[in-house]
Amino acid sequence: MATVVSSATMSLDGFIARDDDSVGALFDWYSAGDVEVPSANPDVRFRLTPTSAEFWRAWTSQVGALVVGRRLFDITRGWGGRHPLGVPVVVLTHTPPEDWSPAGAEDFRFVTSGIREAIAAASEIAGDGVVAVAAGTVAGQALQAGLLDAVAIDLAPVVLGSGRRYFGDVDPGTALLRDPDVVVAPGVTHLVYRLRPSAEEDAAAGVR
Amino acid sequence: MATVVSSATMSLDGFIARDDDSVGALFDWYSAGDVEVPSANPDVRFRLTPTSAEFWRAWTSQVGALVVGRRLFDITRGWGGRHPLGVPVVVLTHTPPEDWSPAGAEDFRFVTSGIREAIAAASEIAGDGVVAVAAGTVAGQALQAGLLDAVAIDLAPVVLGSGRRYFGDVDPGTALLRDPDVVVAPGVTHLVYRLRPSAEEDAAAGVR
Repeated sequence: MATVVSSATMSLDGFIARDDDSVGALFDWYSAGDVEVPSANPDVRFRLTPTSAEFWRAWTSQVGALVVGRRLFDITRGWGGRHPLGVPVVVLTHTPPEDWSPAGAEDFRFVTSGIREAIAAASEIAGDGVVAVAAGTVAGQALQAGLLDAVAIDLAPVVLGSGRRYFGDVDPGTALLRDPDVVVAPGVTHLVYRLRPSAEEDAAAGVR
Repeated sequence: MATVVSSATMSLDGFIARDDDSVGALFDWYSAGDVEVPSANPDVRFRLTPTSAEFWRAWTSQVGALVVGRRLFDITRGWGGRHPLGVPVVVLTHTPPEDWSPAGAEDFRFVTSGIREAIAAASEIAGDGVVAVAAGTVAGQALQAGLLDAVAIDLAPVVLGSGRRYFGDVDPGTALLRDPDVVVAPGVTHLVYRLRPSAEEDAAAGVR
């Protein structure tokens, strides 16, 4: 069964982009070092510090499919059909794009029925791997629906002041998480938090 | 000269309290261990894990004065005149309270003229120590005015979904910070980020 993990670079004040979708210095860590890590998209290159590169390789080697919202798909123009991670992408959208058929478009699937169906489709692709859910509205919907196993945050040493939040405009309510795995790298702190099982699941598992 | 540091416990999604000022599990780390740390207010006790206690002692030993907003003063009813840290408190408010005279009230000063004057008053008290600025509107105003030397965040493994933000309703604009000092403790990750000098200050100091 796939593990479902939301993921994004986030500012100290909780933003993943400005309101105009620019990211300022948020993504500086993607080019902060000398270690080139693989990208399936020749237009997108990453040059990471050794510490971030090690984290990145471990993380990306697990990812079997992505779930993204329509906004991110539009901003990136569908990565020209080639997502840098080289894995299939499930796009949650009310209206699939017409006439979008770059090379690689066969790796993109458009789901209109909701976040559960989008994550189910991605999970089927990912098998026992990780489904990475892009932060923003889709991540908020996934957390709200109880579909996330973990929340990954690449915390950048930047304050943006305003902008788009990690869980978008969704209020997913309160969620409790376990202590994180922490990797402190130059220009970014990588944090991965697993959700705490609910009290009911704890009881079923014989905990407490 | 005093060092000015904003400080708060914050959720993963950037909130320091819910809209109704409740904090849910945010403050669980204050009672997550067996190490009692000093409190000047007998009604407020802290029982920290050893890791957090060490961080706490190092931090609080430096604090010479606090700057808080009127909201926090009202929520806590001025800590009954005894802030747990046992240091003087400068309250930024449009209207100082009348008839507020518990034992200890002489350690509270009310400043009506603005954030600069509040921090100046606290700095005079703190000497070469730290002025701690409570997160919320006052911290947002302080960052916006270029008065902060560092941003301290006790990051709790909790999503609140909505609530009051670390810099309040203030949009302080973009700020770049250095890599943090990180202490990973059970139930909380302590992060302290120093502001990066502006390009002008870098130039004046002969950097780059």
